Amino acid sequence: MAERKEYNIAVVGATGAVGEKIVTLLEEKDFPINELKLLSSKRSAGKKLIFKNEEITVEEATDDSFKGVDIALFSAGGSVSKRFAPSAVKQGAVVVDNTSAYRMDENVPLVVPEVNEADIATHQGIIANPNCSTIQMVTALKPIQDKFGLSRVIVSTYQAVSGAGNQANVELEKQSKQFLNGEEMQAEILPVKGDKKHYPIAFNALPQIDVFQENGYTFEEMKMINETKKIMHAPELAVIATCVRLPFFTSHAESVYIEVNKDGLSVEDLWKVLGEAEGVILEDDPRTQTYPTPISAANKEEVFVGRVRKDLDHENGFHLWVVSDNLIKGAAWNSVQIAQRLIANNWL
Amino acid sequence: MAERKEYNIAVVGATGAVGEKIVTLLEEKDFPINELKLLSSKRSAGKKLIFKNEEITVEEATDDSFKGVDIALFSAGGSVSKRFAPSAVKQGAVVVDNTSAYRMDENVPLVVPEVNEADIATHQGIIANPNCSTIQMVTALKPIQDKFGLSRVIVSTYQAVSGAGNQANVELEKQSKQFLNGEEMQAEILPVKGDKKHYPIAFNALPQIDVFQENGYTFEEMKMINETKKIMHAPELAVIATCVRLPFFTSHAESVYIEVNKDGLSVEDLWKVLGEAEGVILEDDPRTQTYPTPISAANKEEVFVGRVRKDLDHENGFHLWVVSDNLIKGAAWNSVQIAQRLIANNWL
Repeated sequence: MAERKEYNIAVVGATGAVGEKIVTLLEEKDFPINELKLLSSKRSAGKKLIFKNEEITVEEATDDSFKGVDIALFSAGGSVSKRFAPSAVKQGAVVVDNTSAYRMDENVPLVVPEVNEADIATHQGIIANPNCSTIQMVTALKPIQDKFGLSRVIVSTYQAVSGAGNQANVELEKQSKQFLNGEEMQAEILPVKGDKKHYPIAFNALPQIDVFQENGYTFEEMKMINETKKIMHAPELAVIATCVRLPFFTSHAESVYIEVNKDGLSVEDLWKVLGEAEGVILEDDPRTQTYPTPISAANKEEVFVGRVRKDLDHENGFHLWVVSDNLIKGAAWNSVQIAQRLIANNWL
Repeated sequence: MAERKEYNIAVVGATGAVGEKIVTLLEEKDFPINELKLLSSKRSAGKKLIFKNEEITVEEATDDSFKGVDIALFSAGGSVSKRFAPSAVKQGAVVVDNTSAYRMDENVPLVVPEVNEADIATHQGIIANPNCSTIQMVTALKPIQDKFGLSRVIVSTYQAVSGAGNQANVELEKQSKQFLNGEEMQAEILPVKGDKKHYPIAFNALPQIDVFQENGYTFEEMKMINETKKIMHAPELAVIATCVRLPFFTSHAESVYIEVNKDGLSVEDLWKVLGEAEGVILEDDPRTQTYPTPISAANKEEVFVGRVRKDLDHENGFHLWVVSDNLIKGAAWNSVQIAQRLIANNWL
């Protein structure tokens, strides 16, 4: 019996919302690990996490942290990736970066394994993990693009607070209790930590995710627009987004309008393609009120699609309702999948 | 000094979420009332409401309730309107009906005063008040249609639970407390009272408002589609909707994508038109994170518009974020406005 090859893995940002999920998935998936290194900022260093019944102490990330590391999974914010990813690459690690730092860099592949796995092979040390709201949308759209062609995407999102980190979860819980107790809600984090104004998210909806750009779109909206074109290799695809933060903890939902390049398609034609697609689960039966919701999709790896409808005015238009756990497929699981495929294809 | 003419008014469904708001608005607006009759089902009869410091006992609605009534404001569900509106009309009342019972009847004008006030004149006894999510959208779109022409509307909604009645508010509050206490959430009302399945709304999103139709759209979605065309006198306008219930109590928000019939317009052109429009307040400044939210629009009469953006791919495409209190402009206030204009124009 051949011994399986094992790898030295580093998780940067191990104590964050996504980092913790990555550590859990590495264990659940029995990832072939020789040594697991948990890294963080100075503030979180010294914390202990359990991995396969062993206690691992979180260490402060430094330029020397990556010696001997084969794969480094970064999820500690864009500035940390900018600071340490080059050191990691220099020391021989392949970086899978879950921040926006390198996503639009033309030398960095931006990958959702179900969509563009082959792009991993082109890496020069860094592979970027896309934005959460983008990942689930392209996973659902890719099989449609492949089979029928796709010319247009108009998406409105319904996004969980956990996309803004653990502090946003705490804020939603705190504000919910304040509201239910008849107290004034205190807003300090959302919509964007460090931005000029804060608004309550509990029992509310905030049409701002990430900071505003010069063109009036938010950075989250521009991420969905630009990343979708890059991942799907479709610079000519019209993609436009409105991103909204909502008072739930887990999963993003998306109301996605598409126009396909084939005439005369039916809902059944889309059901067939989605039903067979990798990483997609079709949950769509109006007769039994079957459709995915943020709660039903939570803690699952797949992208769930329901409410498939043909546009009543536009022959080639269809509507989809796409839901997935933003911390799993939208972040941790997609990163771990990239790492798995790096190994399986000998692309390290 | 001429005495002002005063009218006998009946409110049917006076103890419901919308009925109570109607009674409040009749007082706040100093509506010219001679006698106010409050009607309800047998179950709520006997309750007392305060109107201008006087206690009025709610009576059970019967066929004889409408003798001498000039205007009857119905808001007690479609079956009650079907049952009693014809009696009210026969006895000489003009009915303003806030249910879906008569909205698509070709002999019944469907009216948002800012959009199609003149249609009130064509009534044959019944004037229908549109669906809440439709009212706020057409109020924002009408000035754009008038100035530039409008060919296409694609809307995704973010709707408050109060649209499903007081019981839905109670359910959201109860489930929120259950969730925060780590208890299992009990779902008995939403998404649709009396439908086959119920799902928790607290910390969730339900892509179903009202029952499913044969074509896979929900009745709420079909209401938005059909009512918009009727109110705007635009049978050729392409309108399509995805309606989603969300965990907040008050106000509907809408992500509205439109295509106009004029080339070369800018965001500033739309700002100008919206800023001057009757019943619309523009709240749109990305530099100061200014945009409306369900909480900021609550308890106000106007329709608030923000996040106006030009489509990056489609020359004539624009995005709007439209928010309004679903029980006020979306229901009670629009009904009272119709009654005001009936009187002001001598259209009774």
